[in-house]
Amino acid sequence: MFVVKIGGSRGIDLDAVCADVAALTREGKQIVLMHGAGNEANELGDKLGHPARHVTSPQGYTSRYTDRQTLEIFVMAACGKINTFLVERLQKLCVNAIGLSGVDGRLLEGTRKDAIRIVENGRQRILRDDYTGRVEKVNADLLRSLLASGYTPVVAPLAISYQGDALNVDGDRAAAMIAGALAAEQLIILTNVPGLLRAFPDEASLIPHIDKHRVEQTIDFAEGRMKKKVLGATEALALNVRQVIFADGRVAEPLHRALEGKGTIIE
Amino acid sequence: MFVVKIGGSRGIDLDAVCADVAALTREGKQIVLMHGAGNEANELGDKLGHPARHVTSPQGYTSRYTDRQTLEIFVMAACGKINTFLVERLQKLCVNAIGLSGVDGRLLEGTRKDAIRIVENGRQRILRDDYTGRVEKVNADLLRSLLASGYTPVVAPLAISYQGDALNVDGDRAAAMIAGALAAEQLIILTNVPGLLRAFPDEASLIPHIDKHRVEQTIDFAEGRMKKKVLGATEALALNVRQVIFADGRVAEPLHRALEGKGTIIE
Repeated sequence: MFVVKIGGSRGIDLDAVCADVAALTREGKQIVLMHGAGNEANELGDKLGHPARHVTSPQGYTSRYTDRQTLEIFVMAACGKINTFLVERLQKLCVNAIGLSGVDGRLLEGTRKDAIRIVENGRQRILRDDYTGRVEKVNADLLRSLLASGYTPVVAPLAISYQGDALNVDGDRAAAMIAGALAAEQLIILTNVPGLLRAFPDEASLIPHIDKHRVEQTIDFAEGRMKKKVLGATEALALNVRQVIFADGRVAEPLHRALEGKGTIIE
Repeated sequence: MFVVKIGGSRGIDLDAVCADVAALTREGKQIVLMHGAGNEANELGDKLGHPARHVTSPQGYTSRYTDRQTLEIFVMAACGKINTFLVERLQKLCVNAIGLSGVDGRLLEGTRKDAIRIVENGRQRILRDDYTGRVEKVNADLLRSLLASGYTPVVAPLAISYQGDALNVDGDRAAAMIAGALAAEQLIILTNVPGLLRAFPDEASLIPHIDKHRVEQTIDFAEGRMKKKVLGATEALALNVRQVIFADGRVAEPLHRALEGKGTIIE
């Protein structure tokens, strides 16, 4: 059993990813897919006159400021377009995919951070009315029961707060929580780079292997969006996932390549 | 067990519908909800510069012409905004709702009508590249297993073709197929009128009761969008659903009222 996170940035070859998912499920492997929505949500926000606003925390992590209107846009992109058409694409390949977000059946539950601290022009300030949060609980029974019935769950990066609010969550960390809850062997994080790079964007600086106990040091040199992916990796490992693999999602057979050790392996 | 179709037009009181669903599930009733997306999809299409195009068949039924771009807009409105926020609304009321469309797990399967015959300015012509269809098969096992685990399925009006294409389908007829497949006692169709009207829009002309064997005659005087609802009713009855109730979705306790016989009962 393994969990695959498909990044939301440009460049990922969805045809190749889905063909590989189909090949692996034919071999009897159980897979849970999690996807991002970043790029699609940005484009939709631009078209609807409510562009995305990305903010940076004092710790240097970037995220999307999600007021209610941004949440609506994010939901239309993530649960609507990306999730449904990813399920359609897999169904065409005879994978019996089923799309869910964390709101469905309280699949991903967590605390809403309605006020977030950000750094803007060198100064700290508080933003309110935010619909973001962090996944704390996974409804593993729901995923297990779907997997046991032969379905391949495809999960959109939303969670539900304990009060019942839909929340935009980080997909990498959510995938890590799912991998942990399902005691998955591997978490594969596909992005539009070959893995973790010591000197982004120089692809020759790929780090092939990181020891489990040295992951946190990696966060310091991980660039922008990679920081959260490394954080997700540490969380998955802490939950006893055996391997986290950062791999290239732009190539043919991306999952087979990742499982053969191409990319950055953290174990 | 009953199936409730919530119309996609303005005026339906979703707070009242959801409160009633919560009350009925607390009483131990099993409910499958199906929703429309018409109005929301129209508004989104307008905002994105790709307005909806409604066409009329030679038999007088109206439908949405669904090219690929319209399908994307429909999916964002139906599977994204409406489905997710309906699930969120129910979750806030402690109903463990789970959102699906007919694409998920091949819940609703049917034949794609990629060419449709329409009447325009009194002349018949053919439109191609249409992503619409009619539900022919229901994955009742998936719904039964979710219901048995305590979930309340919330279904968006899409189906999947045998070739794996996502299709826009009529929600009333899809709800009828679901009710038939689950051997539901009742199918309740909530709209923004009190039921079937002999002289639309005169609400005093409500028809309280129609005999099962006389439903088809009703199609003749049903106005525009009601025609398909009546067709859905005949299909549900043919599949041994005991009662179809057309009821007012704008009032308090709409489901309790419908079950008490307020509206148009067909049996």
